[in-house]
Amino acid sequence: MPLPEKALIAQIRWMTQTTVRGRGRILVGIGDDCAVLGLPPEHEILVTTDFTLEGIHFRRDWHPAESVGHRCLARGLSDIAAMGGEPVAAFLSLALPHDLPQSWVGRFTRGLISLAEKHGVTLAGGDTAESPNGILADIVVVGSVPKGKAILRSGARPGDRIYVSGELGGSAAALLQMQTQDTQRHRKRSHSGGAKELARVTTGVSPRAYSRHFYPEPRLELGRILREKELATAMIDTSDGLSTDLAHICQESHVGAELNSVLIPLARVGKPARAVNLDLALNGGEDYELLFTVPPSKRIPSKIAGVALSHIGDITRSRRIFVTDPQGVSYKLHPKGWEHFRR
Amino acid sequence: MPLPEKALIAQIRWMTQTTVRGRGRILVGIGDDCAVLGLPPEHEILVTTDFTLEGIHFRRDWHPAESVGHRCLARGLSDIAAMGGEPVAAFLSLALPHDLPQSWVGRFTRGLISLAEKHGVTLAGGDTAESPNGILADIVVVGSVPKGKAILRSGARPGDRIYVSGELGGSAAALLQMQTQDTQRHRKRSHSGGAKELARVTTGVSPRAYSRHFYPEPRLELGRILREKELATAMIDTSDGLSTDLAHICQESHVGAELNSVLIPLARVGKPARAVNLDLALNGGEDYELLFTVPPSKRIPSKIAGVALSHIGDITRSRRIFVTDPQGVSYKLHPKGWEHFRR
Repeated sequence: MPLPEKALIAQIRWMTQTTVRGRGRILVGIGDDCAVLGLPPEHEILVTTDFTLEGIHFRRDWHPAESVGHRCLARGLSDIAAMGGEPVAAFLSLALPHDLPQSWVGRFTRGLISLAEKHGVTLAGGDTAESPNGILADIVVVGSVPKGKAILRSGARPGDRIYVSGELGGSAAALLQMQTQDTQRHRKRSHSGGAKELARVTTGVSPRAYSRHFYPEPRLELGRILREKELATAMIDTSDGLSTDLAHICQESHVGAELNSVLIPLARVGKPARAVNLDLALNGGEDYELLFTVPPSKRIPSKIAGVALSHIGDITRSRRIFVTDPQGVSYKLHPKGWEHFRR
Repeated sequence: MPLPEKALIAQIRWMTQTTVRGRGRILVGIGDDCAVLGLPPEHEILVTTDFTLEGIHFRRDWHPAESVGHRCLARGLSDIAAMGGEPVAAFLSLALPHDLPQSWVGRFTRGLISLAEKHGVTLAGGDTAESPNGILADIVVVGSVPKGKAILRSGARPGDRIYVSGELGGSAAALLQMQTQDTQRHRKRSHSGGAKELARVTTGVSPRAYSRHFYPEPRLELGRILREKELATAMIDTSDGLSTDLAHICQESHVGAELNSVLIPLARVGKPARAVNLDLALNGGEDYELLFTVPPSKRIPSKIAGVALSHIGDITRSRRIFVTDPQGVSYKLHPKGWEHFRR
């Protein structure tokens, strides 16, 4: 793990020193060729890796640096949650353009570290490089789960009920809002040609009013409890959007599904808060909620670990996914693979 | 682990299907939120992560795609070797520009897979994205080592002998050669202005004559044997160059070193083969040899696992690193942090 940039080394060393030292399983952290991790006996290792690329996953003019750091780690932690696992350590590969202000890196780091601390995850290593273009991050999260207990995508059976945590569509609504403002800005610019005029339109999208987009909360405690109580037969996180993520479960489990549109929890966003439309809830990604299936014999409370749970439909034998609307009309739900916004 | 690009998904699925299935410890590979790995009892986990960025770590006009794939994985495997560990699984995050020819990806993949097969490593997951600029890869290698047996950088003691495997400077010599040719090309271009003239100068640097640069061989078997026979007190791979990597060992072990310049194995490169100069052997990086220290009580053969081993100096109490030349003159060796070539 070469660390070419002195400032970055200092930054990353600071990160490890300030991070809560997880579950005492980091035997060797930054400063050797590899990190060395211990695992509790009778556990298996979980590994997930996720890119965060400027212009693909975030934009510097849209996302505060703290939010970029938070979202970077949240993506990995959410994957661990979706297996019912517990995070042990994170590894951050970070390539930065040479002219990036040091303050950006500091704020990115604070966003990442504060989420790591909250979940007792140690930043145990990584790589740094100079980026030829834009900010590039890759987060690796290593977790653990008792042997044979990981909740896979492949365990759903016909008759299982489909649940989702929290609300859907809130993250995509923020993106839509920012895209709309961008278009307005461009129009204003081409009319007035003045930077002064431009500044008046740039109101930004408040991270508070759209917290599920800027500061998504990985559902680690919920995932762990579902695994411990053996409530879920299959699970995934809604990173690509309900239609796509449910299709993953159905494909891996060789089943189909029927959703009831009125049961889908629509996110409430903005100020004053308004519910998003059904399309965003069905197809918008990056909400990082848990989507899971429950056998008919098990009862699910309305909340676990403070997170609301909604029964949104059922698993079927048919291999197809349908949505039924309030008029009782059913239509096929196509996985509209959540595409990150393009520049 | 969202996989937005269909072609890439197919590519990566193909990679996992064609890779030898390691040591039977990959319980869940690509197709779930996380990979699930099993570890032999009484073992610890090794994790390393390394960027491979176009324009920083390679250039498309200098490096064949197969070499980029090979080098990408070799960097991670070499870190595992430097701990005396055994690789279990690799995870590849790959972001590609939308206009990259599919054939490039195929050749990159073949280079990576053929090295993975050689060492019984499974590609167990990763992430794919569209890159806003240039090819971006991040390789994660997870390995294992018996509890407490990882060879760290911090174990060197005064009186230990310093050994290095193979030859040094060969990788940097290739870069130097390519840079020189680039300069010549630019001069020709500014004189003649003709593309025809240009083509005649573009001879390229033969990967065969500079194999240590294009196809470095991670010293996994050597590292494992050194660990099993408990021959090494400290170890690192020469990714940053001897002067920098030895400084890492000295810093972590709180010791110094004295090297004998005539004992340093100079790489022989090019056609006809010529030895590189001492400066390249001392400061050139990316040779991926193993640099390790041996207590006075242990004997080291001239070769282990077919790799030549050279006793190049000794660990001292002084906290400084010196090189003695053939005239008996000593000078201080400064870590000339290997900087990857800039565009």
